[in-house]
Amino acid sequence: MEEESAFSREELSWLLAQSKVPRPLIFDEGALKILDQRILPGKIVYIDANSWEEVALAIKSMMVRGAPMIGIAGAYGMALAATKDPGNIERAAIELKKTRPTAINLSWAVDRVLRIAMENPEGAISEAREIEAEDHERSFLIAKNGSSLIKPGMRVLTHCNSGSLAAGGFGTALGCIIWAKLIDGKEISVFNTETRPYLQGSRLTSFELASADVPDTLIPDMAASLLLSKRMVDLVIVGADRVARNGDVANKVGTLQLAISAHHYGIPFYVASPRTTFDMSIESGKEIPIEERPAEELVIFNGIKMAPDGISVFNPAFDVAPFNLVTGYITESGVIGAWKIPYLD
Amino acid sequence: MEEESAFSREELSWLLAQSKVPRPLIFDEGALKILDQRILPGKIVYIDANSWEEVALAIKSMMVRGAPMIGIAGAYGMALAATKDPGNIERAAIELKKTRPTAINLSWAVDRVLRIAMENPEGAISEAREIEAEDHERSFLIAKNGSSLIKPGMRVLTHCNSGSLAAGGFGTALGCIIWAKLIDGKEISVFNTETRPYLQGSRLTSFELASADVPDTLIPDMAASLLLSKRMVDLVIVGADRVARNGDVANKVGTLQLAISAHHYGIPFYVASPRTTFDMSIESGKEIPIEERPAEELVIFNGIKMAPDGISVFNPAFDVAPFNLVTGYITESGVIGAWKIPYLD
Repeated sequence: MEEESAFSREELSWLLAQSKVPRPLIFDEGALKILDQRILPGKIVYIDANSWEEVALAIKSMMVRGAPMIGIAGAYGMALAATKDPGNIERAAIELKKTRPTAINLSWAVDRVLRIAMENPEGAISEAREIEAEDHERSFLIAKNGSSLIKPGMRVLTHCNSGSLAAGGFGTALGCIIWAKLIDGKEISVFNTETRPYLQGSRLTSFELASADVPDTLIPDMAASLLLSKRMVDLVIVGADRVARNGDVANKVGTLQLAISAHHYGIPFYVASPRTTFDMSIESGKEIPIEERPAEELVIFNGIKMAPDGISVFNPAFDVAPFNLVTGYITESGVIGAWKIPYLD
Repeated sequence: MEEESAFSREELSWLLAQSKVPRPLIFDEGALKILDQRILPGKIVYIDANSWEEVALAIKSMMVRGAPMIGIAGAYGMALAATKDPGNIERAAIELKKTRPTAINLSWAVDRVLRIAMENPEGAISEAREIEAEDHERSFLIAKNGSSLIKPGMRVLTHCNSGSLAAGGFGTALGCIIWAKLIDGKEISVFNTETRPYLQGSRLTSFELASADVPDTLIPDMAASLLLSKRMVDLVIVGADRVARNGDVANKVGTLQLAISAHHYGIPFYVASPRTTFDMSIESGKEIPIEERPAEELVIFNGIKMAPDGISVFNPAFDVAPFNLVTGYITESGVIGAWKIPYLD
């Protein structure tokens, strides 16, 4: 793996400049500017997180989201802890990792900055910057590798948001699509789910695809199988929040449903995610904790309650698609089968 | 089939009195009072439809919905046409049938009143009342037959709303659940989808289940496969908007997805609907027209747009689950297999 040298500094700058989507995180003068993704695409507002606690709150409240991106946010949160609150650095690591339990990138990034900060607090900022830079490079490699699967004229279905608002570069799953269009110049089209309850599809993926001039059609989540049954889709690509050693994939709730339907109709189903998403410490998806989000996210729309008072709600943020429903994994090392995952490291 | 005599008049009155859900349609003194289901459960408001055109608008705008219930609304619309606008009776029939193209009950009911009205306009009202009365009886028979499949302690998953807001009696699919609890006294529990974009699940099914004291948990549509994969559901029951001669089922979009997942995990998947929903004139689901609803229903929430301007939207209201994914059909004639459908008449 030659990922460090895959792109020159000039190539990376040029690639980053191709995206018209605002950057979700900007670290500047001891504060982390965080794009509030909850109010996109209507409003583009950055808040300043001046402490690790404010970063933790922004992750918890989904102001910033997407597995690789919350890893980067966690890294900068640790950099703020190391420089402004060094006495609480270990508590900061614990609290930051607790904010979102399913994605593995968060704890990976937090622990990496913690190791540096314990020896040299000043090194924490450059380590966090390094984590971000590596994620850009990894994501561009994923995007380039994934684009090779997308032939001109193909119609691609994606779920949730795995673009540059969720990861470095152009993103992971959405990054493959954006690369196919912006860099490889292929005429392709996309269907994307709205992704209830948080609407990452309607609000974020539709916005990123429009920014890249990719023809895109928004669908209700539940219409995905209809598209697959009518062969209106050639390829499904989704991101991942954690991949187990056997290839089981935790990703936005509904990924399992898409994987089952794609398998039923014999349509290729790919998962795009960086090696930081692969958790070699767990054998299967059964060991991945599934975060449950508050009931309010499901029943309150723009402040108005859309269900009777007092009802029970089960609002899991993720589910697990088993490896045998996944055609392949698009990583920075190439497109691989599940059998190859244990040999990634 | 002895459906006319299945329940005595007293039994029917008693059964109807068990439901605490407001009736969706009340025909009274030459006007059809229509419960505005778009603002349930927050507000209980009836509007007066004084002409067939107003009934057509109420159906089109989904003030009243559910395949059997729009059949009844169409019948009363024809009764209003026959008594108030007899010169336009044939146009009324055409326009009413056009309002929602997928459900077959609407055209069945409209044509039935039209045949009577052509001979005797005064007979139209009693024919519409008869259609409603028959639907109550049919629905109670479906509910009773379906309850026999629901054992004490079972956890049932349903989709959309197929209760007394959508059909006579206690409804069709939801009617089976309500009967199991209210009449047969079984302790059961339910998971129901929110059913985007119109939220018939969150707003209507949760409301009906709460009214009948059935323990119920609301889930995002896309979490259904997670429940099935974890064996948190013993039985899936949905309604139908049209069933073809071979058993293919058109129902609320997402039904196909549920059917595929239930089949994948070997969990029984039943369709509950009256014989008026079975369309013997079509061989398979390929011939069922699938209504597309306006883009606004998907992207505007309580007046606020949740997606970028100008994006394309595909918003199909229904999809078709093939007969080979359906365990059985719960009808007023009993629970039957697909092979028996051609012999229903």
